[in-house]
Amino acid sequence: MELYAERGFDSTSVAEIAERAGLTERTFFRHFADKREVLFHGSAPLQELLVREVDQAPDSLPPLEAIVSALGDAATAMFEPRRDFARRRQAIIAASAELRERELIKLATLASALAGALRRRGVTDPAASLAAEAGISLFKIAFERWVDDGQQSLAQIIQQSLDELKAVTAGR
Amino acid sequence: MELYAERGFDSTSVAEIAERAGLTERTFFRHFADKREVLFHGSAPLQELLVREVDQAPDSLPPLEAIVSALGDAATAMFEPRRDFARRRQAIIAASAELRERELIKLATLASALAGALRRRGVTDPAASLAAEAGISLFKIAFERWVDDGQQSLAQIIQQSLDELKAVTAGR
Repeated sequence: MELYAERGFDSTSVAEIAERAGLTERTFFRHFADKREVLFHGSAPLQELLVREVDQAPDSLPPLEAIVSALGDAATAMFEPRRDFARRRQAIIAASAELRERELIKLATLASALAGALRRRGVTDPAASLAAEAGISLFKIAFERWVDDGQQSLAQIIQQSLDELKAVTAGR
Repeated sequence: MELYAERGFDSTSVAEIAERAGLTERTFFRHFADKREVLFHGSAPLQELLVREVDQAPDSLPPLEAIVSALGDAATAMFEPRRDFARRRQAIIAASAELRERELIKLATLASALAGALRRRGVTDPAASLAAEAGISLFKIAFERWVDDGQQSLAQIIQQSLDELKAVTAGR
């Protein structure tokens, strides 16, 4: 990631990344499908954590609340301790259309996995998909506010965004 | 699009598309940035229509309702008369990761434009972004249901999805 920050994503080659990391190109490609993936190796552990939390949420928790609660816990465990890293990473992604596309597909994959977890809780479609997509959109917007914000925690911003989303869908 | 349906997106070259359309490759690239764009030339007129509708919506209409009303009108004007086309196009996109990425970035661009239209109506952030993203997620889910559904109109499915989203965010 340092190289992307120094030179820009487009001008950094896999050879340079591998060299900086002390790997051969071949080893690099054993770990990453392409150079975009370097910035997204956190998405599999994030997905596992969120799905596990939704699977284990109390039965009484409504679908969107189960997702937002999982997002809040992931925020505290995985993102809050690394806000500077998150900010630098987000700036690199924002500067490249290719990386923005990859980020969107990771978020869509996350939404599908969460919709699956909701279906296992007995939530039917389209409610499962709507709740999962709403949760992920909310997370994306909260995340962007958090990297720009020096004050509040990501978990707080997620909770506020949920309240705002409730107001918006209630027609206020 | 016929060629993509016959051979698959990956196995179709720009030279073949240009030949089928009676164009030179050079003319093709004057119209489309790459071969993915062929399937998305409808996104600019869709965005113009949606933004115009939101700009012209009555002041009394709450933000999400303004977006959903615009989506319903676009559904009737642009999608309903071409359900077969939409179904074939969707099958091609679903079969290619590259095309799914491009579709997601088009939807994200649409959401940004709609958030901008809401801000012009005096809606503040994050409500503007949340309403725009919620509207676009809802549209995506409704669209997928519509191409699989032989009965209801897209506008009806959009309206039902809004009711379901309201129930989901209200915690039911």
